[in-house]
Amino acid sequence: MSLTLYYAPGACSFVPHSLLEMAGATFEPQLVKLHKNEQNSPEYKAINPRGQVPVLVVDGKPLTQIVAIVGYIDARFPQAGLLPTDPFERAKALELLAWMNNSVHPTFTHFFRPEKFAAEHSTQALIKSHAATSYKPLLQELDALAARAQAEGRGFLVGDSFGPADAYALVLLRWGGFAGHDPEGFPALWAHVQKVAVLPGVARTIERERLVLNVYKPA
Amino acid sequence: MSLTLYYAPGACSFVPHSLLEMAGATFEPQLVKLHKNEQNSPEYKAINPRGQVPVLVVDGKPLTQIVAIVGYIDARFPQAGLLPTDPFERAKALELLAWMNNSVHPTFTHFFRPEKFAAEHSTQALIKSHAATSYKPLLQELDALAARAQAEGRGFLVGDSFGPADAYALVLLRWGGFAGHDPEGFPALWAHVQKVAVLPGVARTIERERLVLNVYKPA
Repeated sequence: MSLTLYYAPGACSFVPHSLLEMAGATFEPQLVKLHKNEQNSPEYKAINPRGQVPVLVVDGKPLTQIVAIVGYIDARFPQAGLLPTDPFERAKALELLAWMNNSVHPTFTHFFRPEKFAAEHSTQALIKSHAATSYKPLLQELDALAARAQAEGRGFLVGDSFGPADAYALVLLRWGGFAGHDPEGFPALWAHVQKVAVLPGVARTIERERLVLNVYKPA
Repeated sequence: MSLTLYYAPGACSFVPHSLLEMAGATFEPQLVKLHKNEQNSPEYKAINPRGQVPVLVVDGKPLTQIVAIVGYIDARFPQAGLLPTDPFERAKALELLAWMNNSVHPTFTHFFRPEKFAAEHSTQALIKSHAATSYKPLLQELDALAARAQAEGRGFLVGDSFGPADAYALVLLRWGGFAGHDPEGFPALWAHVQKVAVLPGVARTIERERLVLNVYKPA
């Protein structure tokens, strides 16, 4: 089985990237330079016509979508314990992952790429500022989850071991810094993210992606 | 095991609703009247604080998010064959489901509920019309998938048996009618949806939800 992961630094591809590292998988990491528009090159579009990261190529066959890739990595590396095995607990873990992916992540997309949602520059500016505001209560929900995990003596957002929600939380809180939200305003989440960041596989991912965790700049 | 599904007619809750019916599951369907704002009642918010459908309550414990609920139904009713069992094929099925859920569905949300994305009425109107336009190429992608399934002699969007993507496709094409897109403009998808609609479990779901499939009204 050959695995190649196409990723961009700091993008949501961090989730499968860190999961592969934490699972001890042998894979080829392939950097996609978004600032050079490599995701829209004919070569890349042949792999993913939507021009997005991540793509996990399994024996030459591309797989996209965080939720699908996470399920696949878990199936291939069950010993890593990335998702619970009990069907209901597993579904609860995927519920959190799906919400991050279809609610929190897209809210940031409205801040980061408002041109997807309106043609007019003035409208884009309004969408962008509205999204920056809407993003805060979502980070607060994640902060409450981190606080609950801490109160229950669990080291991770779901159950007792590292999983995709922990990696996604790191990405989403980091993005918050770009949208004007100081990570220190979400103390339980920020503490959680800093703890997750030093797990060996996560630390290797951060190093390869050359990420600074706190990108917030006070106005 | 007791199962209760909270659904609203024509909402994305149609996906788990029809899957439960197709799996021959014993469950209690609970109608949530969105036009009466029941999703925001204290009773409902105690089940789902986000005030959304669907919720599948399993032995008193609520589970939300289409992707998570679908995985759970599949785990409980494996004989229904709702998802492929091969790990990669299963991931490909979830890839399509996740894309419907985080890309096609939210594009319609911009048409249906533009107030989520901007405060100003004029901005909302621009977001709404932009979304109606953006929705068309997404339905065209689904139409191409249906055409490919047909060309390959498969009766369903993924593999050879009914699954969540078929149910979601029905919902998404139906919504297109509200956004000004005639289903007959997507002939392979429309043929597929009409074929899926007469499967016994899907037909029971349509009857319980009292759905008209083609809601398009020419201007």
